[in-house]
Amino acid sequence: MSSSPTNPGTNQSWGGRFSEPTDAFVERFTASVDFDRRLALQDIQGSIAHATMLARVGVLSDDERDAIVAGLTEIRGEIERGEFQWSVKLEDVHMNVEARLTDKIGITGKKLHTGRSRNDQVATDIRLFLRDEIDVVEAELKRLREGLIALAEREADTIMPGFTHLQTAQPVTFGHHLLAWQEMLARDHERLLDCRKRVNVMPLGAAALAGTTYPIDRHVTAELLGFERPAENSLDAVSDRDFAIEFASFASILLMHLSRMSEELVLWTSAQFDFIDLPDRFCTGSSIMPQKKNPDVPELVRGKTGRVYGHLMGLLTLMKSQPLAYNKDNQEDKEPLFDTLDTVRDCLKAFADMVPAIEARKPNMYEAARRGFSTATDLADYLVRRGVAFRDAHEIVGQSVAFGIREQKDLSEMSLDELRQFSEVIEADVFEVLTLEGSVAARNHIGGTAPDQVRAAASRAREALAHLGR
Amino acid sequence: MSSSPTNPGTNQSWGGRFSEPTDAFVERFTASVDFDRRLALQDIQGSIAHATMLARVGVLSDDERDAIVAGLTEIRGEIERGEFQWSVKLEDVHMNVEARLTDKIGITGKKLHTGRSRNDQVATDIRLFLRDEIDVVEAELKRLREGLIALAEREADTIMPGFTHLQTAQPVTFGHHLLAWQEMLARDHERLLDCRKRVNVMPLGAAALAGTTYPIDRHVTAELLGFERPAENSLDAVSDRDFAIEFASFASILLMHLSRMSEELVLWTSAQFDFIDLPDRFCTGSSIMPQKKNPDVPELVRGKTGRVYGHLMGLLTLMKSQPLAYNKDNQEDKEPLFDTLDTVRDCLKAFADMVPAIEARKPNMYEAARRGFSTATDLADYLVRRGVAFRDAHEIVGQSVAFGIREQKDLSEMSLDELRQFSEVIEADVFEVLTLEGSVAARNHIGGTAPDQVRAAASRAREALAHLGR
Amino acid sequence: MSSSPTNPGTNQSWGGRFSEPTDAFVERFTASVDFDRRLALQDIQGSIAHATMLARVGVLSDDERDAIVAGLTEIRGEIERGEFQWSVKLEDVHMNVEARLTDKIGITGKKLHTGRSRNDQVATDIRLFLRDEIDVVEAELKRLREGLIALAEREADTIMPGFTHLQTAQPVTFGHHLLAWQEMLARDHERLLDCRKRVNVMPLGAAALAGTTYPIDRHVTAELLGFERPAENSLDAVSDRDFAIEFASFASILLMHLSRMSEELVLWTSAQFDFIDLPDRFCTGSSIMPQKKNPDVPELVRGKTGRVYGHLMGLLTLMKSQPLAYNKDNQEDKEPLFDTLDTVRDCLKAFADMVPAIEARKPNMYEAARRGFSTATDLADYLVRRGVAFRDAHEIVGQSVAFGIREQKDLSEMSLDELRQFSEVIEADVFEVLTLEGSVAARNHIGGTAPDQVRAAASRAREALAHLGR
Amino acid sequence: MSSSPTNPGTNQSWGGRFSEPTDAFVERFTASVDFDRRLALQDIQGSIAHATMLARVGVLSDDERDAIVAGLTEIRGEIERGEFQWSVKLEDVHMNVEARLTDKIGITGKKLHTGRSRNDQVATDIRLFLRDEIDVVEAELKRLREGLIALAEREADTIMPGFTHLQTAQPVTFGHHLLAWQEMLARDHERLLDCRKRVNVMPLGAAALAGTTYPIDRHVTAELLGFERPAENSLDAVSDRDFAIEFASFASILLMHLSRMSEELVLWTSAQFDFIDLPDRFCTGSSIMPQKKNPDVPELVRGKTGRVYGHLMGLLTLMKSQPLAYNKDNQEDKEPLFDTLDTVRDCLKAFADMVPAIEARKPNMYEAARRGFSTATDLADYLVRRGVAFRDAHEIVGQSVAFGIREQKDLSEMSLDELRQFSEVIEADVFEVLTLEGSVAARNHIGGTAPDQVRAAASRAREALAHLGR
Repeated sequence: MSSSPTNPGTNQSWGGRFSEPTDAFVERFTASVDFDRRLALQDIQGSIAHATMLARVGVLSDDERDAIVAGLTEIRGEIERGEFQWSVKLEDVHMNVEARLTDKIGITGKKLHTGRSRNDQVATDIRLFLRDEIDVVEAELKRLREGLIALAEREADTIMPGFTHLQTAQPVTFGHHLLAWQEMLARDHERLLDCRKRVNVMPLGAAALAGTTYPIDRHVTAELLGFERPAENSLDAVSDRDFAIEFASFASILLMHLSRMSEELVLWTSAQFDFIDLPDRFCTGSSIMPQKKNPDVPELVRGKTGRVYGHLMGLLTLMKSQPLAYNKDNQEDKEPLFDTLDTVRDCLKAFADMVPAIEARKPNMYEAARRGFSTATDLADYLVRRGVAFRDAHEIVGQSVAFGIREQKDLSEMSLDELRQFSEVIEADVFEVLTLEGSVAARNHIGGTAPDQVRAAASRAREALAHLGR
Repeated sequence: MSSSPTNPGTNQSWGGRFSEPTDAFVERFTASVDFDRRLALQDIQGSIAHATMLARVGVLSDDERDAIVAGLTEIRGEIERGEFQWSVKLEDVHMNVEARLTDKIGITGKKLHTGRSRNDQVATDIRLFLRDEIDVVEAELKRLREGLIALAEREADTIMPGFTHLQTAQPVTFGHHLLAWQEMLARDHERLLDCRKRVNVMPLGAAALAGTTYPIDRHVTAELLGFERPAENSLDAVSDRDFAIEFASFASILLMHLSRMSEELVLWTSAQFDFIDLPDRFCTGSSIMPQKKNPDVPELVRGKTGRVYGHLMGLLTLMKSQPLAYNKDNQEDKEPLFDTLDTVRDCLKAFADMVPAIEARKPNMYEAARRGFSTATDLADYLVRRGVAFRDAHEIVGQSVAFGIREQKDLSEMSLDELRQFSEVIEADVFEVLTLEGSVAARNHIGGTAPDQVRAAASRAREALAHLGR
Repeated sequence: MSSSPTNPGTNQSWGGRFSEPTDAFVERFTASVDFDRRLALQDIQGSIAHATMLARVGVLSDDERDAIVAGLTEIRGEIERGEFQWSVKLEDVHMNVEARLTDKIGITGKKLHTGRSRNDQVATDIRLFLRDEIDVVEAELKRLREGLIALAEREADTIMPGFTHLQTAQPVTFGHHLLAWQEMLARDHERLLDCRKRVNVMPLGAAALAGTTYPIDRHVTAELLGFERPAENSLDAVSDRDFAIEFASFASILLMHLSRMSEELVLWTSAQFDFIDLPDRFCTGSSIMPQKKNPDVPELVRGKTGRVYGHLMGLLTLMKSQPLAYNKDNQEDKEPLFDTLDTVRDCLKAFADMVPAIEARKPNMYEAARRGFSTATDLADYLVRRGVAFRDAHEIVGQSVAFGIREQKDLSEMSLDELRQFSEVIEADVFEVLTLEGSVAARNHIGGTAPDQVRAAASRAREALAHLGR
Repeated sequence: MSSSPTNPGTNQSWGGRFSEPTDAFVERFTASVDFDRRLALQDIQGSIAHATMLARVGVLSDDERDAIVAGLTEIRGEIERGEFQWSVKLEDVHMNVEARLTDKIGITGKKLHTGRSRNDQVATDIRLFLRDEIDVVEAELKRLREGLIALAEREADTIMPGFTHLQTAQPVTFGHHLLAWQEMLARDHERLLDCRKRVNVMPLGAAALAGTTYPIDRHVTAELLGFERPAENSLDAVSDRDFAIEFASFASILLMHLSRMSEELVLWTSAQFDFIDLPDRFCTGSSIMPQKKNPDVPELVRGKTGRVYGHLMGLLTLMKSQPLAYNKDNQEDKEPLFDTLDTVRDCLKAFADMVPAIEARKPNMYEAARRGFSTATDLADYLVRRGVAFRDAHEIVGQSVAFGIREQKDLSEMSLDELRQFSEVIEADVFEVLTLEGSVAARNHIGGTAPDQVRAAASRAREALAHLGR
């Protein structure tokens, strides 16, 4: 960044000690404007603040500041209207904007760069950009959490099998399952806000690496740009890329969670599970197999986990062993960060749109829970409450299950006599605990699957979400 | 975890519906006791709290609780004294401890498992363990930061070349450079504490996946164990491994930082740089090359970056696409977490020991800064202050540097006449800005490299570290 | 490696220019003997070959060689019998063995190190070790492939649903599905042998980095050790770790494949699919839920994918940006390589043992294939053969499926009249293509799912495996 | 891929059983045409071969084939001239091309899809594409290797310090160092060709997943497309993405090597090393620091290591745990593969252009080798040849070095008397081995650094490269 031509081959700003122009392929290979132009609005925002501060401390006159601000404002309009002519020759977004400014307002445009360098400029742009994008991501994340909480409340009484090892374990409520998803996202939400705190620190003023000899006031610029504070150390400010890595870590954990939800949605829409229905608008069919209805959205989200993990690993590799301060390597931070942001935002949007439209096939869920001896633990607990030693209770239940498998009967379908074959302490009240409804209702403590607990948990979650601040 | 034998082959706790014993290789392949025994003390701590709570709510009698607590306390002693006999047959730490407890106190030992499962038990153990280890890691991190701050103060006036692209850029102070390292670690420190908040939540009470039918009081257990609160959702509580991934993310960013510091230490101890001396006790020699003194410690830390990145990727991969709730896959969370903790702690300790012993070779640093035309920017700024347009100033300095390269003279070694060849606005006061001392002193704003700024920054850093709370 | 004490603190081999002993923590931190002792037998094998060569070229006398070989042979016995005393003070496997040799045979033991360095010694040891382990891995891989081929032949006629997007797509044979797994492994097998070629090159003779001044004959040593040739460049020979990364790449792709098979085994043993039965000896039960039978082995293999991916990433990170030649970082190559080898070998063994014991629940597979309108494509093809345009055929089938969903009838269960509602070209022979048997038999070309093709493919696979050479 | 609309909302090819159109955001989210259009020429190539085969076996008439081939040929022209109108509504490259074909030649265009599916079509396209790109990559790799060999020959006698631990170890020749780089690339070259073998296998004919009921001849199509053979199993053929992962593994190891070379180039162009000069056209300057000349190309290549490692990890994650056969996740294979190919090709081109232009600053290299006591090993070897025990020789040399450090004299600068202080066996002929020329010349065996060995190795390398076949 610190090292590029305004116009190589004809009028290089740094050409004084060079005896030949940059190789044409090298010019393209090292240029960044094809991707960093995405920072253009933040670049202008940062420049306006910088010019304003320079006038405040007397380095620029008020007229110079006004000319710069007016010029940049015009350029912002050109960019927003898609009229701006980007040039690879000018290498990056900063030189493109500066060259256009000089076209417009003459030599005063060059004064904008007083007391800064592209090293601190790009670090500032990318933090402003990331901060804006985090707010967009957060809004989608919030919307998804709200959708999950609402659906969980609606499905607080819906019974489904709970699985461990993908084997039927114990009955749970669908609402409880959905709140498990919500809890994952609540932690992601916290991590996002923790990351935002560390993004919101201003590099500007670090100049190339050591600070500047001009009498800048970094607190003024920070305030103008909404940063919490200026970065404490100039060498660190231009070389730090933690904020990108930390965001990629947040995104990787989030996508991990979305991949788990996606996996379950794919399972649940299979003919074998058939637990839910996804609306047609989130699915696609097949040109060759007319009967197909494919859960493309969760599959694709699951697949996108790979690219986000990959970007995290790429950024960590990028920074490994780099000596201070700025090195050209750092130009490679932008594309993975941009793609991570886009992916996170789109996946959250897809889920936030889709989740409220999930329809539970309650009879199928119920039947699956009923078939898998899912209340075996309840029978064991019943026996223990009747004084049977835990180890013996386990054995009794094991024999009952083996009998059920042979006879193709669930525990609740056996007669009292059949059950009493295995233990005489069993009495008629056993059927209260052998029903699915009894089983879930009995897990009635904070965090348990009882419908009342689900409703209470949903209510707490809504409250927590509403009060989540920065 | 939910799925293992107490004694496969003879007396399996889950053998009721099984017709053949576990394959011998499978038994070894699926056992975890070789690594999860490291959780033994936390397992006992959790069990004592669980028993205490069970007595409080009336599920255990006070006598039962006392017998259990006494038995577990004895077992803890056996483990601490290295007398405990671990058995792979008993698969994991939980069954080993439980079997020993039953040996000691009979069938009451079995009652300890009332209202919990190995799924929530292991999740609790690992969080207790990680919380303890985070505190150890934090102490080393703090010690390293203190060492850096003290060294930075000592070297606030020491001048060295600042590099971008590993080319001499501008002079900086060594203290300023050290504070750049300190800033990296300050962010790591924040991330560690943010992670600790999310670690400190209690899964216990989630049982296998859905909660339990016993009238447990999870707030009591949480308080006994020092957890901030019980986890909100039982399905999430047994399947969540975010805390391990988030710790591995923290560790990866930390090791990235240490790899950058290591790279610089390796460079600086090379014959070519020769900027510092590392005490012999942190180096090794060569059996074949008698002249060698190798910076093994920073090299090894740099190398260990790989294993930590790898563990992060391993944990992310582990959790990708896992359906709820507990799956056997999760057993694979421990080894990478343990190794990450050990690596982080050792690397921090090595650095915390080594940093205070770094000796700057000040004349070499100074000479390197002097030779690289590192005050060229200062000359340009000087010209601009005299009214020369920035573009022209850059050109003038470029020509001066080209002259200096030809004549083998730094800018500050040229005569006034030589300098005035390139611009007549240059006068005798130019030498004030061309000295290294003048250059660094002029960057006198927050974040800048001026010695006074370095001392002020060190002081702020010490203050911030002292007040860093939870 | 080039840089360590024979006996730090008292009699350091490299202590001449050092003024203080190594720090005790640093000694432990930098020692490798805890893990590299695993290379002991290869270390001795390499030393015997080196001594033999040195005698051949006249650097050692025959008596010296004989003493060295006898001493090393004794040490090998001590190690194999577990009697060898390892010392962390002696840092690594090489110094431990050498010190013991000198104990046994006096100063002649020191002559063994003539013309080599620990840098080329360790590189040689690790290649010998990896070559041996690759052969073990290959044997397990072969056994697994044989098991799959045999099972595929047995199940060549068994019909199951083929899935895309986990939705029933078209009927396939179970044998065909198993051969898809086999094909994945066939490519892995090729990659393993390609990797072995590049492992089997000898670094010895590179010495510390530049070769040696002694008149060594590297072709002799290479032949004694079974290496294909000596490495071409000494700097490369001591710093190259490609072989470890390439093996980790092989292992990662293999584990990816095993994770896919595991995922399917877990799905198929769920109550919802119920396609196969895994023998009890590869499963475990639950201490809390007596009805459970968990597919622990495939779950654990799926989970182990994470650690292998992680080791690959760790090794790539380790080597990124390392300048030539040997750096201490490289010591970090061993643990990930060892763990990758162990994991690969165990996972392959577990699968090779388990696969022949998989029992297909054929009626369930058949019924699942029958229910999902899986012959819809066959109906479309039938219509096209009767002259209906493809687009129209697709529409007709779509309507038939919609009717079937409403009426809860598969296509083959509809009457001719019902089918003819949608197209009059349909005649009685349609039922030949609507049966599952007809559908699979019709895909009768190389690579297709027809039973005859499966048998032919199994036969070709067996042939190819038998002739797979090096 | 198997699951997408030709024209959602109006005329969906798979709309029969769907009751609502695809959501607009979902349409964009799941579309792939923005990136898979890059496969257009290969898509047409595959379609022409498929149509030719279908006519050969009688499924198409010759007239139909001719119409299809003519239509596709026109479309290829439109694409090459940039006139083709791509539509996101048509989701992917396949549907875009097919829709245009039907526009041109009517309903016959639809017949092209007989006996295939988008699942096997895309798998074929991407292999054709990758095969073409591998050949481009190979050409650049070959050019780089040739450049290194030529430069190594030119610099066979140039002496520089060899480093271990970045400490001066022993003198080597610059040619020898360059050949170390060449050896790394030779292994990469082998891996690339091994990968190409596995890429060059044809999925076409697998159809959606099970093969087709049409009487296709896959050997004909394979021959027309230059594939070595048809894939053996249809389920595997549509779901396998090994080829992409294996290419990414190759690329990661290659970039790791380039990162090492880049690191050295960056070090060598620093003021501290000053070993080489890179031509201005591969460097850039600084707009703020007129004296800078930054090695941007190697820095950027080093940075790009991250993105390639990231893509490898992304692809491995993508495929983890996917059940057979095709899932929508697989759409995510293309972007990382394309970016990996572009990065590899550009980095190799940059290096192949740059390497021949590297200029050694021989006096600086020589002086650095002379200063670091780099012939200490040679003195030890000299003493051993005179009968001094190795351990004593090491001690003597250590004392000589300590003396040299004190007196600021290299070993070769000491007088005979000075040397004899430490051992009386030293005589005048010692200076032959203490010169740098003597030291390198003495390492005169295969793989050693002697100039004659370097020339012989370069010659062998050139020979091997010329004969490297497929």
